Amino acid sequence: MSAALALTYARAHRRRSLAELKEFVRFPSISAQPRHAGDIKKCAHWLASQLRRIGLENVNIIATRRHPLVHATWSGATGRPTVLIYGHYDVQPVDPLAEWHSPPFEPTVRGKDLFGRGACDDKGQVFAHVKAVEAYLQSGRALPVNVKCLFEGEEEIGSPNLVPFVARNKDALAADVAVMSDTRMLAPNRPALNYAERGALYLELELRGPEQDLHSGNFGGAIHNPLQALCETIVALHDPEGRIAVPGFYASVRRWGPDERARMARTGPSDAQILRDAHAEEGWGERGYTLYERLTIRPALTVNGIVGGYQGAGGKGVIPARALAKLSFRLVPDQDPRDIERLLRAHIARIVPSTLHATVRILSGAKPALVDPEHPAMAAAALAYRKGFGAAPVLLRSGGTIPILSTFQEMLGIPTVLMGFALPDDRIHAPNEKFHLPNFYNGIATCIWFLAAVGAGQHLIRDVDRRRC
Amino acid sequence: MSAALALTYARAHRRRSLAELKEFVRFPSISAQPRHAGDIKKCAHWLASQLRRIGLENVNIIATRRHPLVHATWSGATGRPTVLIYGHYDVQPVDPLAEWHSPPFEPTVRGKDLFGRGACDDKGQVFAHVKAVEAYLQSGRALPVNVKCLFEGEEEIGSPNLVPFVARNKDALAADVAVMSDTRMLAPNRPALNYAERGALYLELELRGPEQDLHSGNFGGAIHNPLQALCETIVALHDPEGRIAVPGFYASVRRWGPDERARMARTGPSDAQILRDAHAEEGWGERGYTLYERLTIRPALTVNGIVGGYQGAGGKGVIPARALAKLSFRLVPDQDPRDIERLLRAHIARIVPSTLHATVRILSGAKPALVDPEHPAMAAAALAYRKGFGAAPVLLRSGGTIPILSTFQEMLGIPTVLMGFALPDDRIHAPNEKFHLPNFYNGIATCIWFLAAVGAGQHLIRDVDRRRC
Repeated sequence: MSAALALTYARAHRRRSLAELKEFVRFPSISAQPRHAGDIKKCAHWLASQLRRIGLENVNIIATRRHPLVHATWSGATGRPTVLIYGHYDVQPVDPLAEWHSPPFEPTVRGKDLFGRGACDDKGQVFAHVKAVEAYLQSGRALPVNVKCLFEGEEEIGSPNLVPFVARNKDALAADVAVMSDTRMLAPNRPALNYAERGALYLELELRGPEQDLHSGNFGGAIHNPLQALCETIVALHDPEGRIAVPGFYASVRRWGPDERARMARTGPSDAQILRDAHAEEGWGERGYTLYERLTIRPALTVNGIVGGYQGAGGKGVIPARALAKLSFRLVPDQDPRDIERLLRAHIARIVPSTLHATVRILSGAKPALVDPEHPAMAAAALAYRKGFGAAPVLLRSGGTIPILSTFQEMLGIPTVLMGFALPDDRIHAPNEKFHLPNFYNGIATCIWFLAAVGAGQHLIRDVDRRRC
Repeated sequence: MSAALALTYARAHRRRSLAELKEFVRFPSISAQPRHAGDIKKCAHWLASQLRRIGLENVNIIATRRHPLVHATWSGATGRPTVLIYGHYDVQPVDPLAEWHSPPFEPTVRGKDLFGRGACDDKGQVFAHVKAVEAYLQSGRALPVNVKCLFEGEEEIGSPNLVPFVARNKDALAADVAVMSDTRMLAPNRPALNYAERGALYLELELRGPEQDLHSGNFGGAIHNPLQALCETIVALHDPEGRIAVPGFYASVRRWGPDERARMARTGPSDAQILRDAHAEEGWGERGYTLYERLTIRPALTVNGIVGGYQGAGGKGVIPARALAKLSFRLVPDQDPRDIERLLRAHIARIVPSTLHATVRILSGAKPALVDPEHPAMAAAALAYRKGFGAAPVLLRSGGTIPILSTFQEMLGIPTVLMGFALPDDRIHAPNEKFHLPNFYNGIATCIWFLAAVGAGQHLIRDVDRRRC
């Protein structure tokens, strides 16, 4: 179980690792779309066969009410810590398909990048851990720690079945720390350790007006158009200051003192950097906060999609009978998605006019999560980044949501180290998603070092310059 | 050329007329959708072959830059007036397809109604004229007037090529009056003569923000979402009173005096009737006007569709790079769509924030139109309705738009009699469009009487109780 041997093995097998990652990306494992349920299943079976081949034990595909979990263990490191490696093999939908330069499920290398849906989020990052485990087991037949792998197929739909699974299997999943790679670095040579994720509440708001679509000449100007009303309702969810206008929404938002905000200003991305990452010219949002603060310590509400009326070429003179918006809140400590749902439903009931009928359907919810930056596993991760990428990580907050974080914290009592290898321009959730291949290879090395550092315990951890972290 | 013989012929051939109307409706002649260009062409050829078979002369299919015109004449009534029969054989798109009880292009009789896209708008109503002409020519080899038929395939996309065609062919199209059937009666036994149509300006408004779709966790709250901004822009196009908030928009709206408004209140539908027709519970719109007034003498702005962000099942955490709305203004005398376009462009430039780029694309425009209720052809139509439906028509304004009206008025110097056979619940432009078959058969009789009345001139016209009209 020498890290050096494992690193040599990993380096020697890069070509095969890439070929296998491409196989992984080929599965259109889109969890949101029921027609891809079979693809998800095939992807789970492929992943399980990989875990068996590299030498993990007790590899199981665990059926849920929707998409299966893949679970595997290795428990040969008696007396050493246990690391729970978590990740997800499901991916986001691919539309708008026309904007992809190569088909989303035909992984393609251009320059130093592998393009494909899921290449970065999260298949490539999951695979860095798999390859690190393989490197130990194939080069030295042992790992420096005990390992439990838990890979789900429902992360992109809010992990509805993982939470009950964890609740039912607390003993089987017992570990000292969890690690996952589904977060971003600042740049190829600037790793980052996330210590905060926002929560989420994803919902559909549907407004229904007339019983059927109406001719907009015969009725335009006298009948309330559900699509017009939907726009009015969406606008009424923000106030003119860019704050969310749902009464009570900010009541449980934690205020951070000047120390934390100063640290964020020191370590986090500048407004200019965020705009560069977004390829946007100007910022937007709640006044009184930097863009980084708006993205991390402040909640947000985004219209993710609107479905209503005529969508085809040219024009159609119609007042649609109904209109639907897909809306997502991002929540921060100490907001609870169940409270926000209650406040939102009450607000919608108040603001939607009597000319229309409103329905709110919750698609998923997740609590915000914080990780203690002083935990020893954070130091192990910092060492691993220094070895793997040649640079110490900065401590960052993320604007995204990883539903499992609060679950692991509350049910297993363990923190999760967010040791991500994604880059800001990897276009996750968007057309032309990619994974930077140097990050894949350095990521494997980082995972190898992380397992070594956790296995070595305090001795190795003390070796880390913690002031850098 | 006896109206009585023609009526007998028409009655004897009802079964065949219905069978042929079904053939007509089978063509998916959707003018807005480029993939149906071939279907439009086939439909034009089928219609032309019908016109040849019934005995019209000079039947031609006239190519345009998009969809062809069908033109035919009969000029055997020397010294008699010439009637220009106008209609359209193109139809609206059919979505949402799932809501049709029978496929839109498989015409189906249920009860006394023929269901199918275009059954009412406008194929069934065009066909009533065709069958009336056939009845004269097949029963007595002559018509009581000279006839010119002009049927277009672009009405539902704003007649872009008909206007230049009319401009180039003023002499060939010279007539004393035009007639078309593309408007509504109040009920199966309550005919209506429309004397006013609203104009229109149909456009797409596109907002572009970041260069590409963004992850709404990583960027939500700090980057202006084009879909959010589109909602804000749409809402900003109305003021809180339900008036259109484009500066200058109402400057040329004609004010109608108490006499006209009293006549409208007497003859037009009540608020309750309009709500029943719409299957809606409550009205909406500009304060200070009845629903009928809002639909006819007041302009309106309708959001006909929004395309933006994720539209599929479940959720997707995305900030879309762009969002698009399909918007249509309905205009009233003396608004000109070119002026409104100019005002709108200036307003959009003012209200869209600098975080986004806006594009306005005009799809079509049409001037509002008025027909003089005192014109003798209106009396001929009133007589025809009394004979065909057993009831005198009421004079009504319509909220819809018929682009050709102002063209015929300005270029040919003739009024157009709007002698419609549609019913308020015929669901034109919506799923389950239908044509009431008694209206088809009574419509054929009405067209037969209309040609007779115009041919007989003042003598017959004086026979009409004009006070009823």
